[in-house]
Amino acid sequence: MGSTTTTPDILLSADLISNLQKAIPQDGTRDSLLSSVIPSLLKSVSEIAKDLQNSHHVSAAGTSNTFGDDQLNVDVQAEAHIRHAITSCPTIVTASSEEDPVERPVVHTTPSSSPREKYTLAFDPLDGSSIIPSNWTVGAIIGLWDGPSALNSPPATAQFLSILGVFGPRTTAIITIRLPSRPSICLEAAFDNLTSTWEVTRPVLSLSTPDPKTKYFSPANLRSASDIPQYASLVSEYIAQAYTLRYSGGLVPDIVHALIKGHGVYLSPVSDRHKAKLRRLYELCPIALVVECAGGKAVEFEKGQGVDILAREIKETDERGGIVCGSGEAVVEAVVKLFA
Amino acid sequence: MGSTTTTPDILLSADLISNLQKAIPQDGTRDSLLSSVIPSLLKSVSEIAKDLQNSHHVSAAGTSNTFGDDQLNVDVQAEAHIRHAITSCPTIVTASSEEDPVERPVVHTTPSSSPREKYTLAFDPLDGSSIIPSNWTVGAIIGLWDGPSALNSPPATAQFLSILGVFGPRTTAIITIRLPSRPSICLEAAFDNLTSTWEVTRPVLSLSTPDPKTKYFSPANLRSASDIPQYASLVSEYIAQAYTLRYSGGLVPDIVHALIKGHGVYLSPVSDRHKAKLRRLYELCPIALVVECAGGKAVEFEKGQGVDILAREIKETDERGGIVCGSGEAVVEAVVKLFA
Repeated sequence: MGSTTTTPDILLSADLISNLQKAIPQDGTRDSLLSSVIPSLLKSVSEIAKDLQNSHHVSAAGTSNTFGDDQLNVDVQAEAHIRHAITSCPTIVTASSEEDPVERPVVHTTPSSSPREKYTLAFDPLDGSSIIPSNWTVGAIIGLWDGPSALNSPPATAQFLSILGVFGPRTTAIITIRLPSRPSICLEAAFDNLTSTWEVTRPVLSLSTPDPKTKYFSPANLRSASDIPQYASLVSEYIAQAYTLRYSGGLVPDIVHALIKGHGVYLSPVSDRHKAKLRRLYELCPIALVVECAGGKAVEFEKGQGVDILAREIKETDERGGIVCGSGEAVVEAVVKLFA
Repeated sequence: MGSTTTTPDILLSADLISNLQKAIPQDGTRDSLLSSVIPSLLKSVSEIAKDLQNSHHVSAAGTSNTFGDDQLNVDVQAEAHIRHAITSCPTIVTASSEEDPVERPVVHTTPSSSPREKYTLAFDPLDGSSIIPSNWTVGAIIGLWDGPSALNSPPATAQFLSILGVFGPRTTAIITIRLPSRPSICLEAAFDNLTSTWEVTRPVLSLSTPDPKTKYFSPANLRSASDIPQYASLVSEYIAQAYTLRYSGGLVPDIVHALIKGHGVYLSPVSDRHKAKLRRLYELCPIALVVECAGGKAVEFEKGQGVDILAREIKETDERGGIVCGSGEAVVEAVVKLFA
């Protein structure tokens, strides 16, 4: 399989490039996506994976809580990889992250040669810190927005690209793009360590498998079920209906599991005692784009109703919310029952 | 930190060797454990990890169910790595695995120089195949028994060593040894890719943390709760008591999560409709040794009671059972409630 050099030391396979091209207008208005943005972001994902592979060094000193510090280091390093990656992306003019939630201008190593493109990056460099010590799969969440800010813009159209980095036994990524007048894509790519190449492993991910052999549920924030009797009943119903439980506690692996299996519903309701923890900008919106492009639904809660996460503008980088997302039918049913 | 060469191309750190020596008699009766058995088995764990890191190649052809074949290949390769590792362990005279559950003599590349030592290996080379496609952490389970067979011997004493390989963002292993007149050990080691060295990352793993900040539960085989009302009630109680849910569906990562956090209870009850799937020889016994050496309890079910897994001899390699294991107090409580 041929491959094309993009940045000096990372390759995207020809197959991956042709899959990405399906979703990107070839009229010169989005040239930087393939020439710098996507290759640089994927490079940062593979660099975070390499760091994680060797992160036991920092915790090797001994006591069981040493990993507290290590974990912090790994977070900081992941943040640094993504921040560094975008210095060579002149069209990414603004960035903010869960670690540093203030939108700031990006300082570039090379000036922009494409004044028509101006993007804002919003990212969570290492999601799932509580399961890093156990060596469970964790992820990175990256969203790309049109314009010089992600705030006060309509997420459904302004946020047009998201990448989920998946750090497990392999290094994989879910790449989603949705742009006007092109087909949207939601694919899985994997990083080949030997050739430093990102390749397509699953060109189409779908949450709308007809008659799935197994149905899956992932009940997050389950402690809130003690305050929300509807949530406790819903979980009991899943059990009675022989849904299969999979819940790692990492948002990225839990969503990716559903995407790979072709079915799943992820629930994270909130209550007065169990407040929303997930950030709309860094977690809910990028995940919602992935889920929608895979044919699923992603809703949050407002005044006792479920509303599409991507329907409401973000006013502040720190806004938080609950979520129910995954296979469309299961999401609709779950929302009805949660607000019964 | 110094390190000592053991097999030609793998190293154990000096710290790891000294931790292992605590549990192994230094009177010449168990010399092969450090000179060949443990280094060879750890080498096979790091080789399986490398295979998994590049296993997306096989599935790269395209369709979403291609991974069915790939998964098989990864299983077969993992089996081959462990089978190959023991050809250079003259004291491992017999082996069987979940993939090939017949005890057979091992053919060695070098003859035994230690006729006093005769061991039997029983292993599950790659546990958790259903979550491999999603790139979730999976594991290998290895148990070592005294004598030329694992059958018809008392597991609590005959099975004296187990290793859990953990294939996640890092490559780690839980190593447990329990031999008469020596302190037992249960430690975590991690593989450093850069130096090909196994190092100690957590010298002592314990399931008996006093007053754990968070309590965890992992309800496997949850579909059986529709047949076992006591199981459904127990899960509801955990929710009401604000236990935190973590359930990956992989036996190794689920047990390792509890070990790293210092608390957890893993439950896999069985019913007439939901039969036992876990093999006593390849899964339950090695896991039980780990859990007991970490200060926890591991019980199976017999005639409506919980009995220690290691209390009953194995008659056939394919025997299966349910399990409740983890932090002792939580296991005792769970068993009482399951048989209420």
